[in-house]
Amino acid sequence: MARARKRLGRRPGESGTREAIAAAARRLFSERGYDRTTIRGIAEAADVDPALINHFFGSKQELFAAVTTFPVELADAMPRIAEGPRSRVGLRLAEFVLGALEDPETRRAITSLVRAATSEPEAARSVREIVTARVLTPIAETLAADQPKLRASLINSQMVGLVMARYILELEPLASLPREEVVEAIAPNLQRYLTGPLGLSG
Amino acid sequence: MARARKRLGRRPGESGTREAIAAAARRLFSERGYDRTTIRGIAEAADVDPALINHFFGSKQELFAAVTTFPVELADAMPRIAEGPRSRVGLRLAEFVLGALEDPETRRAITSLVRAATSEPEAARSVREIVTARVLTPIAETLAADQPKLRASLINSQMVGLVMARYILELEPLASLPREEVVEAIAPNLQRYLTGPLGLSG
Repeated sequence: MARARKRLGRRPGESGTREAIAAAARRLFSERGYDRTTIRGIAEAADVDPALINHFFGSKQELFAAVTTFPVELADAMPRIAEGPRSRVGLRLAEFVLGALEDPETRRAITSLVRAATSEPEAARSVREIVTARVLTPIAETLAADQPKLRASLINSQMVGLVMARYILELEPLASLPREEVVEAIAPNLQRYLTGPLGLSG
Repeated sequence: MARARKRLGRRPGESGTREAIAAAARRLFSERGYDRTTIRGIAEAADVDPALINHFFGSKQELFAAVTTFPVELADAMPRIAEGPRSRVGLRLAEFVLGALEDPETRRAITSLVRAATSEPEAARSVREIVTARVLTPIAETLAADQPKLRASLINSQMVGLVMARYILELEPLASLPREEVVEAIAPNLQRYLTGPLGLSG
């Protein structure tokens, strides 16, 4: 009987419950921002007891950190982007980032991070440390350009701004421009930040 | 006696009270974000009765809109930026924007607007309408470039991203880079968005 009830439960098991919580958290953090998202709200959306969230993730801040660590995975793609003709690395980076943002789940995670970073020091630190140290600085260093950290922060400024303009502010016509045209519009600017001279002679 | 008391009051009069409320609101919206800022908190910071805020400004949303309309004034500078050698318009725009951001009051107003825009549709609409329609599209149109609205939204993406990276995320070394070097780093990219070809041939 206990066995039958277990089978009838909504979740297939621990990992299913954990993933349901994470998915609900990502969605709510993205839709409502960090401040307005509550553990209770996530529990309702995931259809679990709030105590389970604490069990799996700890505090709201820890939950946030756990569901927004995805950019670390993007780091895996960086060597591939840095390889190949140096004169087209900006294009490869733009194609990769715009491609990643096409996926609704990734887009939600990134907009969630950007939204939270504006109000929450913990999220701002995530953006600073993860994106810059683990994604952008390595690519700038691989290219053996001067001032890799400055280049990384400049690229970050354009990337964060693109996410803001296209997906959060929904500025037209940028918001509904086909992906390929966005890639063409920003790639040369990324290229200059990556490999060009950073002074006015550039 | 009544007169003496009036003279001893903290505020010099209606306009002084209004300005005190506006200043407190700008500071709190900037420091705490839109969501966490309350009418009560602004009233305390300005040392006035909360009812006075309602009297002068209406709702929190109306107060927010009232204290964040400053970019309209920036529009006055745009003809001056659009004039002069076309090949250096990106430099003039970068110098103007970085110069404006040096002023603590203006910087606070802009970071406040960007922070709020990520969580508050009303603020996002302010950014979209005021900055793009009244500031950036006119400059792109004055330059008689093709696709002025797309250029405006691309410039906006870089500007919002710069505010995020330098002043909100405080990404180093961009955050503490001398203003002149930031100008040199971003001016050529703004120049391309303003006057360059937007495709890959650019």
